[in-house]
Order: sequence, then C-alpha cells, then structure tokens
Amino acid sequence: MPPTDSSFAPLRLKKQEERRLRAGHLWVYSNEVDTAATPLGAFAPGAPVEIQTSSGKPVGTGYVNPHSLICARLVSRDAAHPFDASLLVHRLKVALGLRERLYPAPYYRLVHGEGDGLPGLVVDRFGEVCVVQLTTAGMEVMKAEVLAALDKVLKPAAVLWRNDSPVRELEGLPAYVEAVGQVPDTVTLEENGVRFVAPLAAGQKTGWFYDQQDNRARLAKYVRGGARVLDVFSYVGAWGVYAATCGAREVICVDASAAALEHVGASAALNGVAGRVSALRGDAFEVLKGLREERQRFDVVVVDPPAFIKRKKDLAEGTLAYRRINEAAMQLLERDGLLVACSCSHHLTREALGGELLAGSRHLDRGLQFLERGQQAPDHPVHPAIPETEYLKAFYARVLPA
Amino acid sequence: MPPTDSSFAPLRLKKQEERRLRAGHLWVYSNEVDTAATPLGAFAPGAPVEIQTSSGKPVGTGYVNPHSLICARLVSRDAAHPFDASLLVHRLKVALGLRERLYPAPYYRLVHGEGDGLPGLVVDRFGEVCVVQLTTAGMEVMKAEVLAALDKVLKPAAVLWRNDSPVRELEGLPAYVEAVGQVPDTVTLEENGVRFVAPLAAGQKTGWFYDQQDNRARLAKYVRGGARVLDVFSYVGAWGVYAATCGAREVICVDASAAALEHVGASAALNGVAGRVSALRGDAFEVLKGLREERQRFDVVVVDPPAFIKRKKDLAEGTLAYRRINEAAMQLLERDGLLVACSCSHHLTREALGGELLAGSRHLDRGLQFLERGQQAPDHPVHPAIPETEYLKAFYARVLPA
Repeated sequence: MPPTDSSFAPLRLKKQEERRLRAGHLWVYSNEVDTAATPLGAFAPGAPVEIQTSSGKPVGTGYVNPHSLICARLVSRDAAHPFDASLLVHRLKVALGLRERLYPAPYYRLVHGEGDGLPGLVVDRFGEVCVVQLTTAGMEVMKAEVLAALDKVLKPAAVLWRNDSPVRELEGLPAYVEAVGQVPDTVTLEENGVRFVAPLAAGQKTGWFYDQQDNRARLAKYVRGGARVLDVFSYVGAWGVYAATCGAREVICVDASAAALEHVGASAALNGVAGRVSALRGDAFEVLKGLREERQRFDVVVVDPPAFIKRKKDLAEGTLAYRRINEAAMQLLERDGLLVACSCSHHLTREALGGELLAGSRHLDRGLQFLERGQQAPDHPVHPAIPETEYLKAFYARVLPA
Repeated sequence: MPPTDSSFAPLRLKKQEERRLRAGHLWVYSNEVDTAATPLGAFAPGAPVEIQTSSGKPVGTGYVNPHSLICARLVSRDAAHPFDASLLVHRLKVALGLRERLYPAPYYRLVHGEGDGLPGLVVDRFGEVCVVQLTTAGMEVMKAEVLAALDKVLKPAAVLWRNDSPVRELEGLPAYVEAVGQVPDTVTLEENGVRFVAPLAAGQKTGWFYDQQDNRARLAKYVRGGARVLDVFSYVGAWGVYAATCGAREVICVDASAAALEHVGASAALNGVAGRVSALRGDAFEVLKGLREERQRFDVVVVDPPAFIKRKKDLAEGTLAYRRINEAAMQLLERDGLLVACSCSHHLTREALGGELLAGSRHLDRGLQFLERGQQAPDHPVHPAIPETEYLKAFYARVLPA
C-alpha cells in the first residue's frame, strides 16, 4: 500500500540539525535524531516519515531505517506533494524528460538515486527492458509502487530487479535477483551510435556502464587514423569496440572474465570490426606485465577498473593499486601516447588520482599533460549537496618523453 | 642570441628546495634560492640559468627573474636538450603534433604555457595568423627565437604580439601590441564546424576563447528542437551563434561592448542564422534585471563572464558576483531549464562555484541537478603539478521546481 498523508510518522531532529537539509542535503544521520522524542527503535525499516525540526516544523517527507547510519532520507520538501506513489510517478516523468531530450535512443540510466530526487532507486533502461536496483529499505518498501510507476510512465516489456548490490547489506536487506516478465539473457543496446551486446542477469551491476558513455565518445579523436589500443578491464568491450569503430587499427581487450570477452567478440562482429578486436583473458596486472616483457607498445591505453576502493579503509591499498596499474599502462605507451585513466571509487578524489598519475610519470621519467578530464554522463546527475553522488573520474593524459 | 650551453649561469636552491621540482613542478619561488651562493640581484631579468640543488647538482635549465615572486621557471630537465632555440622548436612541434591530431582545421591554442612545457608563452592560431603572448621576462628575452621557431614550424603569414596582458606587470614588463607582417583587423575562424568572425588587435585577450570549444559543443543537445537561449557576457557570440546553428529558435546575446555585438551579427549572418540571433547591449546585471521585470523566460541561459576574481584579494567580492549573476540567470529560466555557469577565475574552485549555484537555487527554492561539468579544451593542457594551469570550470545545471 502506498503511504497516505496521514501515514507519515514524525521523525524529530535535534536542535539545528535541519540546517544541512535546508542547505540542500537529503540525508539524516542517526546521531542527528532527537531519539527521546522519536525513538528510532519504534520505526520499521523503510517506514515513511515526516522529518521535523526540533520544534516540530516539517522539513519534508521521506523514509527511515533505524538500522542504517544514514537513518533517514528526505524525498520531498513540498507538503502538497509528499513522498508517495504519485510522487514516484512525477519524479520518473521528470527524469524521463531529461533523457528523452538528450538521447536519440532508449538506452540510458533513467533514474540515478539522489541525483534524480529518488534516493535508493536506480533504473537502467535497455529499450523495452528496465534493470532496477533498490538500495534502501525505504525504496524496498515501495517496490510495488516503483513497478507501477514504471508501468505507468514507460510500460516496459520486462523488469529485472538486480537487488544484489552489496550496499543493501548496510540497510539490512537481503540480496536477490528477480525477473518480472520475459527478461532476455542479453540485450543489444546502442551507445554513441554503436551497437553492443550486454548480459543482464549475469552481467556486472546492471549489465552495462552507461556512466562512461560521454567519456568513450571523447576517445574517438584520439584513436582515429589507425591507433593501436589496449582496453584494460574491458568487461564487454565498450571502450575497445567503440575505438575500433572510430578507426583504431588494432584493439586488444583485457579482462578476467571469459564470458565478458565473449560479448566483446559478439559486439565487434555486430559492428563489422571483429578483425581488428582481439581479447586477452587474465588478471590485468599480470597481462600488462606480460605485454611489457614482449615489448608491446600502444598509442592509447584505457584503464577503467572496477572500484579498487569500496570502503574508506581500503583507501591506502586501493590508491596504490591505481598507481600500479596506471604506471604499468604508461610503460606500454609509445613515445607520444595517451593514457585514459578512470576511477569509479568515490573515496579517491579527482586530485588524488591525478597525483598518482603524476607520481607514476615522474617515477618513469616521462612528461605528462592532462588534456581532458571526464566525469559521469548526464544521465547520472550529481546532487549538488551530496558529494557521494559524484564518483566517476577519467583523465586523458598525454605521456611524452621527459 | 640564443643562449648556448655555456651561457647558463647557476641558480642555487636552498637545501631540499628541489623536491617540488623533482615531483614535477616548474616554478622556483624567491625564498627557495640560496641567495648567499647565487644572489638574485646579480641576474638580468629573463637570463637563462641552470637550476641546481643546494649541493650543486643540476635540476635542469630555465630562466630567472629577480623581480618576480616566481623567480625562476624550469623549462628542461634534460641536460642534452637545455632551454634554447632548438628546444623551442622541438616543443612547438610536440605541441603542434597534438593539435593536428585533434583538430580538423588550423584554429586552436597552439601553445599553452606550462601546460606545453613552455612557461611564459601562449600562441593562438587563426589559420595563417598567430597571436602570441609573452608573459615572462624569460620568454621576452627569447622573443626573436620564438618568432624564428614559429617560422620554422608553421610559417605563419603574420604574427600579432599581444604583449599587453596585465600579468606582465608582475614581471616588470611593459605592455605593447605589435604586428609582424600584415595582421588583419578580423579573422574568420572555425569552431565545432561553425564559422565565426573575431577581432584580433582590438579583441579581448588574443581575440577568441578557444578554451570553451568543447563546452560549447556540449551545448548542442540541450538547445536543439527550438530552445530559447540567453547568452550572457556573450563577447562576439561564440555560445549564442553556435546555439542558433544547433537549432535554438531564438538567441539573445548580452554584452557591454557594441563592437563585440557587431561581430555577433556578422557571425550569425555568416551561418545563415541572423534572423534568430539578436543582441542586447548593456551591463549584464542590469540587462538580466530588466528581462526579469519583463517576465522573459529562457530554456537555456549561458553565463560566461570575464574573470570576476583576478587576484586572491578579490575572492569574497568576486564569489558574490558569481552568486548574484547566476541566481539572476536562474530566475529567467523556464520551469525545467538549463543554466550553463562558467568561471575562468583560477582562485574560485570548482567546488566553490558549485556551492554558490546550490546556494542560489536554495534561495530561490528551486531544485538543482549537475548534469555535466566542463573544463578547458585539450588545446589548453593542464600541467599535472601546477594547479594554476587549470582554471576553466563550467557547470551544466538543470534547474527544476523545488
């Protein structure tokens, strides 16, 4: 049942703890709640609440989770339109409006959580199929309403719940994958005018990383005219196959997963570039070492790894891994080459990644120019008050003799 | 005369002061010099030097200016290729190699100072004409060699010395503008496939802002299909005329300069969009106020002002100006509109500009999504060790009802 106006239990904040919310943020931490007035233990995980100042003035509506450090999220500041099933429909329409303006075909992230005013909800659209992640108890409670809203706004042929993200653990939620309707094993999607085959239920995350679309588009001008390209952590070959379609003469995709590399081959064939794209299966660090021993050289190396830093405590070790893999990539570059170095670890700042690249280049006594810096595509809007919603970084670094 | 190897006088650093240089930086501050060993007063402004560690080990070659806070700049770390006329030629070729790979036509920044390993030198190329800025005494000393190197690498028909940048004052250099060969009053250039008319000797800075090329390209998808666009601080209309060629139904360019607005008209006519581009002359703050009183609304407003913060002491006042102009722009947006907010003030960080936009939107009780963030184009390479070489920021912010 969707909550009705009367179903919003009050969640009272301590004195002045509404200030961050008023300045634009959406999260309430458990130590900000006046637990004498509104004990957290009294709430069911995911229950809808009205967040109130210490004097009982409403800040807005959202949902609570007594078991999470982020114990509540604000969804609506507007008393006339509280967090309910119709707000879900409205926010979906606002999200869709942006994507329909920006994208010629229905392949994009439709909802990016807080960035689209829907904390806990991620929807990736693959034409008639939507892959949905619920990452908070508050959204899990609204599961039926999310499905109804998608039906109302998009009428997808099928929906795949990829509710197996590790962040659900923080909310005390179980991991599961569930299909509604006929979800195919793979889809064919279009990105930057190129077609790709991607796995859904068996894929990484939602099956495809739309966040890199614009960064990949930027690669075109660096590879045309016959560049030799290495795509490290290629997954299903989004960078590499695209590079081949843009005029790279030879592309090698490196990934640990044989299944992912099979999709590389399928996508290359689909675009008529199978003869220029090959695959190397193995651990990226080991493969790069081997290529170096063979004295292989590339004009462009793309390093787009999975997050090496998932939690703050991994910062030191993960940072070292970014340093090592990018330094290894630099060693495989021609005298005047391009390194595309990416990180999707929120905990690694853009400046820190840039610093590691600089340190690596100095260690190898090579010169470095940062030509461009990329971030997540516009279908992954950043919430201006929540730095955590900005996570993707890409450096286009020209590596020269010293 | 180009310096020869033997002409590099030693510039001795204090103990451990070479560490920042070894880590990649190019600047020496006057308090880092061992002035007992090598008194700064003994150097002529711009004299070539060999920078040495406290124990006399060479770090590299560059030039000195005893009258500047940045008293020396490192140009070459390579003893076999010190800072001289042939190094200038080599660095120019390396710079040209990048631009020729990236740009289909000869319109770009060819040399971006430190970012291209040539501190104190900026070259903007307009086909057969180069506009050159020398911003340090060390480069001023090399003026003849710079011209010879340009001749050797590019053979430009004419060169315009725009040596009237205010930063020359810090180096104790006079301001002057000087033509070598026949420099036309205006040039026709090409950017993102669109032709523009730009003034040279009478223009702002070098006459054109190539640094925004990629950010302007990004605008296309937001204006197509008939957007109404306001281009604030339009100068010669680079954003506005481009928007009209991309399908905006109406564009208004706002600038204080009648001469700049005449060029807007010329460029619009050149591209067959004169009927959709108009101009409003006046102070931007006043013009925006007037448009608001008329209840005018736009789908897209671009705010690309000259630097409001030229020196660190202008930070508070300048930040307020960014806040005011962008908040005024938000008030002119349709319910679902796009604000493109730019700043070329190095002293205003990206985060600070984002914070001002958020604060403005909260003040107006409107929602905000950061869709994209842009920076200077790749013909303005950032030196990875010198944050000052990264200065341009652009936010593509969707402004919604709260």
